[in-house]
Parts: sequence; C-alpha cells; structure tokens
Amino acid sequence: MKEVNVGILGFGTVGAGVVEGLLKNGELMAQRTGFFPKIGQIADLDIQTDRGVQVDPSWMTTDALSVIDDPEIDVIVELIGGITIAKEFVLRALNNGKPVVTANKALLAEAGRELFEASVKSGAGLYFEASVGGGIPVLRALRDGLVGNQIKSMYGILNGTCNYILTRMEREGLDFDTVLAEAQKLGYAETPPDLDIDGLDTAHKAVVLASLAYGAPVSMDAFTIEGIRGLSHREIAYADELGYRIKLLAVIRSAAGEVEMRVEPSLVPKNHLLAAVHDSFNAVFVEGDIVGDTLYYGRGAGRLPTASAVIGDVMEAAAGGAGCCNWLLRHDSLAVRGAEDISIRCYLRMSLKDQPDVIAKVAHVLGKNDISIASIIQKEQNAGEQVPVVFLTHKALEKNFAAAMEEIGMLDAVDGKPVRMAIEDFGE
Amino acid sequence: MKEVNVGILGFGTVGAGVVEGLLKNGELMAQRTGFFPKIGQIADLDIQTDRGVQVDPSWMTTDALSVIDDPEIDVIVELIGGITIAKEFVLRALNNGKPVVTANKALLAEAGRELFEASVKSGAGLYFEASVGGGIPVLRALRDGLVGNQIKSMYGILNGTCNYILTRMEREGLDFDTVLAEAQKLGYAETPPDLDIDGLDTAHKAVVLASLAYGAPVSMDAFTIEGIRGLSHREIAYADELGYRIKLLAVIRSAAGEVEMRVEPSLVPKNHLLAAVHDSFNAVFVEGDIVGDTLYYGRGAGRLPTASAVIGDVMEAAAGGAGCCNWLLRHDSLAVRGAEDISIRCYLRMSLKDQPDVIAKVAHVLGKNDISIASIIQKEQNAGEQVPVVFLTHKALEKNFAAAMEEIGMLDAVDGKPVRMAIEDFGE
Repeated sequence: MKEVNVGILGFGTVGAGVVEGLLKNGELMAQRTGFFPKIGQIADLDIQTDRGVQVDPSWMTTDALSVIDDPEIDVIVELIGGITIAKEFVLRALNNGKPVVTANKALLAEAGRELFEASVKSGAGLYFEASVGGGIPVLRALRDGLVGNQIKSMYGILNGTCNYILTRMEREGLDFDTVLAEAQKLGYAETPPDLDIDGLDTAHKAVVLASLAYGAPVSMDAFTIEGIRGLSHREIAYADELGYRIKLLAVIRSAAGEVEMRVEPSLVPKNHLLAAVHDSFNAVFVEGDIVGDTLYYGRGAGRLPTASAVIGDVMEAAAGGAGCCNWLLRHDSLAVRGAEDISIRCYLRMSLKDQPDVIAKVAHVLGKNDISIASIIQKEQNAGEQVPVVFLTHKALEKNFAAAMEEIGMLDAVDGKPVRMAIEDFGE
Repeated sequence: MKEVNVGILGFGTVGAGVVEGLLKNGELMAQRTGFFPKIGQIADLDIQTDRGVQVDPSWMTTDALSVIDDPEIDVIVELIGGITIAKEFVLRALNNGKPVVTANKALLAEAGRELFEASVKSGAGLYFEASVGGGIPVLRALRDGLVGNQIKSMYGILNGTCNYILTRMEREGLDFDTVLAEAQKLGYAETPPDLDIDGLDTAHKAVVLASLAYGAPVSMDAFTIEGIRGLSHREIAYADELGYRIKLLAVIRSAAGEVEMRVEPSLVPKNHLLAAVHDSFNAVFVEGDIVGDTLYYGRGAGRLPTASAVIGDVMEAAAGGAGCCNWLLRHDSLAVRGAEDISIRCYLRMSLKDQPDVIAKVAHVLGKNDISIASIIQKEQNAGEQVPVVFLTHKALEKNFAAAMEEIGMLDAVDGKPVRMAIEDFGE
C-alpha cells in the first residue's frame, strides 16, 4: 500500500468537502487503487473557523508556500479561486515538478496556456475535472472514453445558480429579481451574483470544454457571452406555450474547420434531455462522430460533488498519470467563430401598438435583413392595448438579427426593447 | 510516435465499426495520445463478405490463434461473442501477457472471475467498457471519476431493443408482438429475441456494473430477472395515466452490507430523467455518497457507438494501463439480496367481475400478506362487464407480492392473470 500525501490550498466549502471525502472513503480508495490518500497539510489564512469536518491541528498552516515546497507533499490541491495568487501557487508547484489538482475554471480560462505549458515542460500533471460540471466526470469522458471521436458539438448547462433561478421562475411563475434575492438568501447564489448570472462562469467552463475537445486554449474574447439577468417571466411562459424551456446554454460546435461558440439563454425543445435538467443540476450533451449523442449529468457545484471530482483527480495524480495538458496545446490556436457569424434560429418578442400595418413593418425589417419568419403568434387583446407578438424565425446570421433588432426597436409602433433569444435545434 | 498494433477477432457489425473508427480517426488519436492505432490482423471465419469498410487483404485471416500468438500484435480485440470460443481466446491472450479488449457482457457475467484472475495474474489488462451501455463511458466513470465514492445505487436502462419496443408501444399504442415483429424486420431486434426481451442481456450488464462498483463478481443466479415479453399495451396506458413510464430497469443498490439486485419492467415517474430515455438509447443513473446523483446517457448498441468504447479501451491498453480487474476481485464474494427479499412498491392490475364485494376480497388478500394499498383506480364500466382495477401499493417484500398474486389469481371474482410491476421511487 502506497500513501499519497495531499496538500490542500484553500479551506473553504470545497476544501472542507475534500477533507470529508478523503476521511470517509480513503480506505475504500486504497483498496481500489493501491494508493491511500493521506491529508498532509491544509493551508488557509483562516485556520480557526470550524468547517464542519474533523481536522488534526497539525495539518493546518497559514503558509501556503511551505505546503507547495514541502518535499513530503505529493499532490497540491488548489481551491483558493481567483486568478492572481492561485496562479502563482499553481505555477510554483508545477515548476517544482509537483502535480496540481484545481477546480479553478476562471484561472484555466484566463491563463490556461501558461499553466498547460508549465505542466508539459515539467512533466507534472495538471488535473481539472472539478472545473467543469462539478462532480460530473465529463472531461474524463472527453479525454478517455471518447478519445476515438471527433467532437461535433457540445451543449452545456454549466451554471447551477442560473439553472436554479430559471427552474424556479418556470415552476412558480416568479420574476428574475425575486428568485435571485431568494437564491442569495439560501446560499444558492453569490453576492454579487454577476459571475454566474452574466454568463461568465458558464463561459469559463465552455472555454475549458472547447480547449480539451479541439486542442488549443480558447480566448474569452473570441465569442459572445450573454447571461440571464433581467429575463422576464413572460419569456418563460411564451416559450412554454411554444413547447420550449429556457436554459442558459453554452454551445460549442465544430464547423468547417472552425469552432462555433456562444453562451446565451436559449430555447430548448421540451422533449430534449437538456430540458429535463432542473434546479442546480448541470449537464453536458456531447455529440461525437463515432459514438453519436451522449449526455453527462450531475450536480454542478457544491461542497461534496466538487470534492468528488477533486478526489478523482488526486487519485489519478497518485497513480502518476501525466494529465492531458499536451492535448490542449496540440494546435497553436483555434479559429473561433463568434456569435455574430453563426446562423441560428431565434425567438423574438415585442410589444406592438394596435395599428393595422404594424406586423407588416416588423416583417419588412426582418426580410430586409435576410431573416425569414417561421411563425407568428399574436393573442387577441382589447382594442387600443399593447399587443405582445412573438416571431419564431428560420436560421439567419446572428449579426443580421442584431441589426434587425436595432431597427425594430426604433419603430414608432414598437414599445420598449424587443427581446431576442436563440432557439437551439441541436444540429438539425 | 509509437504504434499500437491491433488484432481483431470477429469481423461482424462491431468489428467493422472498429475498423472504420480506427481508419477515420487514427491520426487524431495519435495526436492526442502519442499512440497511432494500426490495424494488424483481422480474424473471422468469413473473410469474403463486404462489411462496408475498406480492408487491406493482408489483414485478413481465418486463423484467430495466429493473431493471438503473433508477437507483432499488441492488443487483442475480442468481438466474437458467446462464451465458448471467445473465452478460450481471451484466456489464451491474457495468459500470454497480451491485453484484451472485449464487448462480451455474457462472457464477463458468466466467467468473469476466471478472466479477471487471468488478467491480474499475467498483468495483461482486460478492458470491457463496451460491454455496458455501448459507447457510454460509464464503467470509466465508476472506476476513475467516481473513485472516491461509495456507490449507493445504480439504475440502468441497458437494453436498446427493449427500450425501443417500449418507446414504440407507448408512442403508437401498439402491442408488444406487433412492435417486436417490426423491430426484427428493421434489424433492431435479433431473431430469436430472447436474450434481449427476457432480460438476460440487461442482467449480464447489471452483473458487470455491480461487480465493478462493489468489488467481486456477481452470479447471474443471485437475483431475479424478468423481461418485457408479452407486456400489454394496457399497462403502458394505465402507467401513463398515473404519471409513469414503463422501462426495463436494472436496479442495483447497496443496503446494509448487502447488494440488492433485480431486473424487471418498472414504473418510472415521468419527471425522472430515466423516463426521458427513449428509443434504443441507454442510460445509467448512478448515486454516489460524495457526488450525489449522476447520469450517463448514449446509444447502448450499434456498430459505431460500441466501436467508440472499444477504441477508447484500445488506447488505454496502448498506454499500458493495467485495467481494473483487481477491483473486481477485492472481495471473495458479494452478499446479493435477490428480489424476493427486497421491499418495493408495486403496481397491480387485474380484471374483476362486477360483484359488490370483489375489491374487499382482493384487499383482504393483500392485507393478509402485509401489503398496504396506497391508491385504487377503478373506472366506471357498463354493468356486468369485467372491471379493470389498478392498485398502487406501499412498500412490501417482493415475496409477499408473489404469494398474494398467486392467491388473488385463484379468486373466482378475478379474471385471467393479475399483472404486477415494480414502481421505482429512486431511493425514497
């Protein structure tokens, strides 16, 4: 029986979960793999607060560098978050030849190339299963199980907070702000919530997925990122009537040598599995050229689910796996096609004045921008009132939609800002 | 760039898929992993028939032993099926120290221990991702991603043929025999279909899942196996009304040091993800003590999906992984609790004569067997006709259900054989 000595940097929620998991199931892991995962050191600025797990005082230190540099520590687990100190620590460990496990998607998305190069250069593995989809072993699926596949597309529900908010808005008919406030009170949303609800966290994870599938780091600037802030309950109700649910989707598709990427709230047909992913759960739908459609589902965040992924990586590091950073450096760069040049179907909703030719005016603007209409839904209203009208379109370039929406917004007959969302047809 | 020379035994549907996948994406795999998978030899009794893939005539041989014994061949892929010759070939390769990849669930379920021991003894890996869930990398998820978890339960839709039949019966209101005949015509079901529709194929896969999760081979005799043969469309319609879909489920649960196992058609609540697994797709719902609920979904059979899993295993063998046969030999044996001693909820449907006290008679038999009724559904009928009545019960021992059903079947007031199916509440 070999021991693997684990050094944990950052003793927050996930750090405590990792300690709990290692203490609970260390013996089982040892039986399975031949390596007993032993907690060596835990570094945090606050080593007093009770995290709800039993810790040996001798594990605790406020000096992260001493953990990184300790020759007795075999694997570093970075759970500090952020991209400044965390980056310094991860690089220091890798450069010392010490494998690192991290859940830090922001760091991977913002400074991936530097980290991957450090890992490949020193031969110390960098493992990051916990960075995407919490406990769902989806990165491993892409790397190992689907190694024989070209990845045609990936569609991810990657942010538990957004999915929780959307689920409650849908089930209870509540408004965005109401649910967000409650989610913050319950600890399901951060304060401030921007990273989640503005789509950045989803985008960080999309970058990791795309980088792994296509073999080069992707820049956050290369694609459109839109969150769910201010989404109206009306959109959810109309989408429901039309047979759709609204999900914050990361869409990543291989197309003619380029990679199409976007993060935005999207209409998902109710009969698609992704429409059945509720609450704070995450899922990634992956289409390979050999395997066909696959889906990976589980809790995308939280103390123990994330710990499950971290622990899986620790055991891989213990076994001396080299990680997969070379995968992410296969190409110098990827040609990413941002949303503006992607063809999508759209849902458009606007409030029109009750005038005879108003629909014709809107349709004219759409036609001028090469957008053809698949269907129009207008409910009967009392005379003189605003009339909400929903257009579902055929495929058109997203930049044409942007132009059309601007023009439509300026029409006298249109009240307020028209709403546009993508309709996802999953490759059809 | 290293080459790995692949020897394929059995050039049927999946064999041709493996060749197609290796030829199409071999270069990509080499870039990703550093190993180029080269087709060395293909053995089959029939080396004339066109399988729809381009093969070099020099690859083809009718002599499987020459492939197994060829020192140039690095990995053996066994796709012959069955448990006689296939077993001999797999053992011969392993005993020669040559890694083996197989999709043969029957062989693993019937002769697992012998194979696992041969693999551990010689140090040659035995890989079998393709044996469960076709292209879905679920065994890898259990072994690697979830290594830090005790597996609390697994619920699998593991047979594409059965799920296809159930989906069509449900969607089109057709009878079992009609759909089976069509499925056979379309190639979605074998002739004879027994292995699939009587639940044996599902049970083979359940044995592999349980063996991996709990650390010892499980015997096929240790649990109840029931298929979908003769399932009436009426059951599907009643289940639908009650908010359920009928799926052929493998249920594997850890309970107080024992493993509960059963394979039977079960009512799955419509709001559960497994109820949204349609057509020939497979899925496995896995609950770990750390990660919580996860689900893995994809095509469970077919030429290319199965090939995807085989190829993933070939690349793992190329990298020199030791496989995981030691996992399946951690314990000498598992205490398996067969269906008769498992507590389940049930759906009971029977045709009752229109007599005043008939429901009381049935309820009396149920009560005598410690089965309490959760709800009764009886639709109004014309006087004098048979009345279909559906009982949903609370949890009771399956052996009590068996006794009660026998007694109820003998009541004068009951016409024909009463129907019983499990209701799956997913751990509640």
